[in-house]
Amino acid sequence: MTNEVSSCTKKSRGRPKVFDREAALDKAMTLFWQHGYEATSLSDLVEATGAKAPTLYAEFTNKEGLFRAVLDRYIARFANKHEALLHCEDKPIKDALFDYFSAVAKCFTSTETPAGCFMINTSATLAASSQAIAKTIKSRHAQQEETLHRFLSQRQQGGEIPAGVDIAALSQFLGCILQGMSISAREGASFDKLLQITHTTLRLWPDLIKP
Amino acid sequence: MTNEVSSCTKKSRGRPKVFDREAALDKAMTLFWQHGYEATSLSDLVEATGAKAPTLYAEFTNKEGLFRAVLDRYIARFANKHEALLHCEDKPIKDALFDYFSAVAKCFTSTETPAGCFMINTSATLAASSQAIAKTIKSRHAQQEETLHRFLSQRQQGGEIPAGVDIAALSQFLGCILQGMSISAREGASFDKLLQITHTTLRLWPDLIKP
Repeated sequence: MTNEVSSCTKKSRGRPKVFDREAALDKAMTLFWQHGYEATSLSDLVEATGAKAPTLYAEFTNKEGLFRAVLDRYIARFANKHEALLHCEDKPIKDALFDYFSAVAKCFTSTETPAGCFMINTSATLAASSQAIAKTIKSRHAQQEETLHRFLSQRQQGGEIPAGVDIAALSQFLGCILQGMSISAREGASFDKLLQITHTTLRLWPDLIKP
Repeated sequence: MTNEVSSCTKKSRGRPKVFDREAALDKAMTLFWQHGYEATSLSDLVEATGAKAPTLYAEFTNKEGLFRAVLDRYIARFANKHEALLHCEDKPIKDALFDYFSAVAKCFTSTETPAGCFMINTSATLAASSQAIAKTIKSRHAQQEETLHRFLSQRQQGGEIPAGVDIAALSQFLGCILQGMSISAREGASFDKLLQITHTTLRLWPDLIKP
């Protein structure tokens, strides 16, 4: 990885322009998140980041390289923080799940970023030529489900979920609800609506963990 | 609308080629469903349908016109048939929901069509320039949720759901699960996995309809 902020001076009057890598990645992230990988062109990215095309090429090689850097930044800024909420071992399982679901719901409906999940939005429709990108997003998204699965397994070992419960099926069901929340947010559902879905899910918890 | 099969003869040896509108729409549907609106180019569509570009232009005006015709065909071939399963008034509510969810699950995982929901896939990420398409898909997708809402309201009036139950919240929850099933299918979940999610949802039914 390059430095957090690399510089690229430009011959012009006044202060030389400095390329702010993080700020450029955040702007590129917004575009990819909103419009997906294919529908975001390099000229859109140049316009949004305020960087020149040669600067973007020098920094990220091509659109795919820029996207990969954006994905890393999304994971650091959002996904890792959400998943960390499942790692509080002293929190009762329902509280940990509530915190995780509501952080995800907040992210999906925040007005500071486009609606829905970055990974679901960008992987939904890719051209046949973007197989490598599709594979990367899919594998990172699968990691998220594995984290949920691991969390539930640990809680089962700790006795919070009865021994006979099928943890794979349970995490698939919860994952399905999280994915549905992304689409709902994309179609205009508010944070409160997603919170209601979270409350309904947790209200069903005693039945969900019946062996 | 034009006729089911309109013809376009071509000067060449042997039999003149006939433009089969329905077959062309089905081929275009597969492309849009798999790759989305933006990532499907007119040259992809020409190649897949086997039609010449002027034929496609004559028939559908432009890519947007072709997409709208494909959406109509998707609704006729799939969405309407799934929704019809909710209109069997003599069927107990859980049976009707099971039939609906499993028909949707079958469609999302069928090997004859791309994975997931046509409308969710194509609306996930659109360029800023495709607002009209975005609006059309969103409004048709909202109709699907309204159908579910109306079905639940009717069943509540008929006494199958207690009077105090919030039907809007219930249909939002069920809609969320259906949307999640689309994403799960897209990420590789089998029909059996989606059926398991359906069974879990219906197992929770007595608690879901507690006022």
